[in-house]
Amino acid sequence: MTTVAAYAAPAAKAPLERTTIERREVGEFDILIDIKFAGICHSDIHQAREGWGEAIFPMVPGHEIAGVVSEVGSGVTKHKVGDRVGVGCMVDSCRECENCAAGLEQYCLQGNVGTYNALDRNGEPTYGGYAQKVVVDENFVLRVPDGLSLDEAAPLLCAGITTYSPLKHWNAGPGKKVAILGMGGLGHMGVKIAHHLGAEVTVLSQSLRKKDDGLKLGADHYYATSDPQTFKDLRGSFDLILSTVSAPLNLDQFLSLLKTDGAFVNVGAPEEPVSLNLFSVIGGRKTLAGSGIGGIRETQEMLDFCAEHGFGAEIELIRADQINEAYERVLNSDVRYRFVIDTATI
Amino acid sequence: MTTVAAYAAPAAKAPLERTTIERREVGEFDILIDIKFAGICHSDIHQAREGWGEAIFPMVPGHEIAGVVSEVGSGVTKHKVGDRVGVGCMVDSCRECENCAAGLEQYCLQGNVGTYNALDRNGEPTYGGYAQKVVVDENFVLRVPDGLSLDEAAPLLCAGITTYSPLKHWNAGPGKKVAILGMGGLGHMGVKIAHHLGAEVTVLSQSLRKKDDGLKLGADHYYATSDPQTFKDLRGSFDLILSTVSAPLNLDQFLSLLKTDGAFVNVGAPEEPVSLNLFSVIGGRKTLAGSGIGGIRETQEMLDFCAEHGFGAEIELIRADQINEAYERVLNSDVRYRFVIDTATI
Repeated sequence: MTTVAAYAAPAAKAPLERTTIERREVGEFDILIDIKFAGICHSDIHQAREGWGEAIFPMVPGHEIAGVVSEVGSGVTKHKVGDRVGVGCMVDSCRECENCAAGLEQYCLQGNVGTYNALDRNGEPTYGGYAQKVVVDENFVLRVPDGLSLDEAAPLLCAGITTYSPLKHWNAGPGKKVAILGMGGLGHMGVKIAHHLGAEVTVLSQSLRKKDDGLKLGADHYYATSDPQTFKDLRGSFDLILSTVSAPLNLDQFLSLLKTDGAFVNVGAPEEPVSLNLFSVIGGRKTLAGSGIGGIRETQEMLDFCAEHGFGAEIELIRADQINEAYERVLNSDVRYRFVIDTATI
Repeated sequence: MTTVAAYAAPAAKAPLERTTIERREVGEFDILIDIKFAGICHSDIHQAREGWGEAIFPMVPGHEIAGVVSEVGSGVTKHKVGDRVGVGCMVDSCRECENCAAGLEQYCLQGNVGTYNALDRNGEPTYGGYAQKVVVDENFVLRVPDGLSLDEAAPLLCAGITTYSPLKHWNAGPGKKVAILGMGGLGHMGVKIAHHLGAEVTVLSQSLRKKDDGLKLGADHYYATSDPQTFKDLRGSFDLILSTVSAPLNLDQFLSLLKTDGAFVNVGAPEEPVSLNLFSVIGGRKTLAGSGIGGIRETQEMLDFCAEHGFGAEIELIRADQINEAYERVLNSDVRYRFVIDTATI
């Protein structure tokens, strides 16, 4: 066991504070990572505040982890000491079910093991990336390609793959009109990725406050959802709307913006149920779907794609003692566009 | 103009009664059909009672029409006097938009013209099949193949195509596990069609009351949704659930029965909005979708498919003076499985 400095929420809704945790010994197929940077995801806040239901405390959030390999187990073949690596939202899965076999570990039929707020296969709680080190099985460790800085790469491990996977699955690309709903941590990655995939990209954001950024990141159009005219102008426009917001939505209104056979795909996860009129999907054979992160193979593909196109996330680097303040700013949509903790400051 | 006997609802929620209506002169591309049979669809009741919103009265319902051509316009090439033909839920569309061009007239971007309770392109109200004759543009008249009796063919024009189209679109066929939710007019056609498409078919019905029928019509399994054990036994089972019910549903519960990447497709249309937790689609990348009838080309394909496989609808033939009683029985799910009016009795 190794004692490691970390930031943890001691209880639901309590502020995070500095503490220490134990990391397991490096097993045969394990990798010890010196964490350099950890992104702050909105879902860290949902979970630390039990917005998605009962959680495990103390909680060390963080599933956007970038660092350097400092030790490997005797059986490890995929990474070596000194490699720049990342860890995302999961650190294990059953590896046997049809979904794991298909590279869809995120949908493991036994349930994947979350990077934090979960129990691992030995029943021990997992602790996330707001810490100085982590031990992870090599199969759940990604390679950060040259050309991506570690700080800008960290958010790709959740915000990147969460938007890349559905954009690929629903065929965002040349000739397709894609709307990204929400211009936050997920949304800004959605814009960049959809743009580099070749789609015509429209941002749908509450206001036009971040319009300049959106256009700079690759959006072709930018509309405010607070303006009723938006819903008239864009009626029947999109092949795909990727919703990154977790606030309640008027789904019927957004479904009306889809073309025939269009899809509205949620990656944001509201805490409350949503309501819709089924005529909104019957007319035009529309789809309301969801998508959760992405598999390990696809996460590597996404990192390689980002490196090839020369972009990471837009970040604000913070010290660990700014985490609680950063949480409030995330809740106020006051971040451009992802807080990343410099874990040297823990 | 031709005066024709018909059954009409004089006002919302009023009983239907015998009356006469005027049919337009047979134009250059029109076909005059002697209606022989007209099916009673649940949506006739929704509309006659204004369950789906304001309607046009008097209303002659009926969009499951089968009959014989008795006159054709000078420009007609698709049908001739004496042909056995059918008319479904629409009698016109813009014929120019991308959906019409693609054979998806049901999703015409100008809106298709409903067979009744609609205004035609001259602004005149349309009247449906509970009548002795109808005049329809040849492009919206289907051929009833030899081997299908007209009475058993009539319900195919709505119940048949409404289930055939999504079953085909979502790839029901060999190796696929398909559930049909609801064992009424639409549902029993869904069972027959999914079975003949080669899928493994499960009926999900409120009770086991119609189990024998379901198995006889082609279902491989039959479960009661009133039994909580059903949701445990069938968790993660289906590639596709086709919901034919218009009663409110616990969508989250039904989404849990889908496999990863499975789709829950609504063709039933509840009068009230439904509620769901978006995590129900995010976990397993699931789809909630809708589908409305089918295009003209696909409707002909469906009729040919049914004839080839030797099946029509299961019907109870009634006299016109039994329509109001039949409506009550439909509302009580007391029909096996479609009422068809013998229009000679009007």
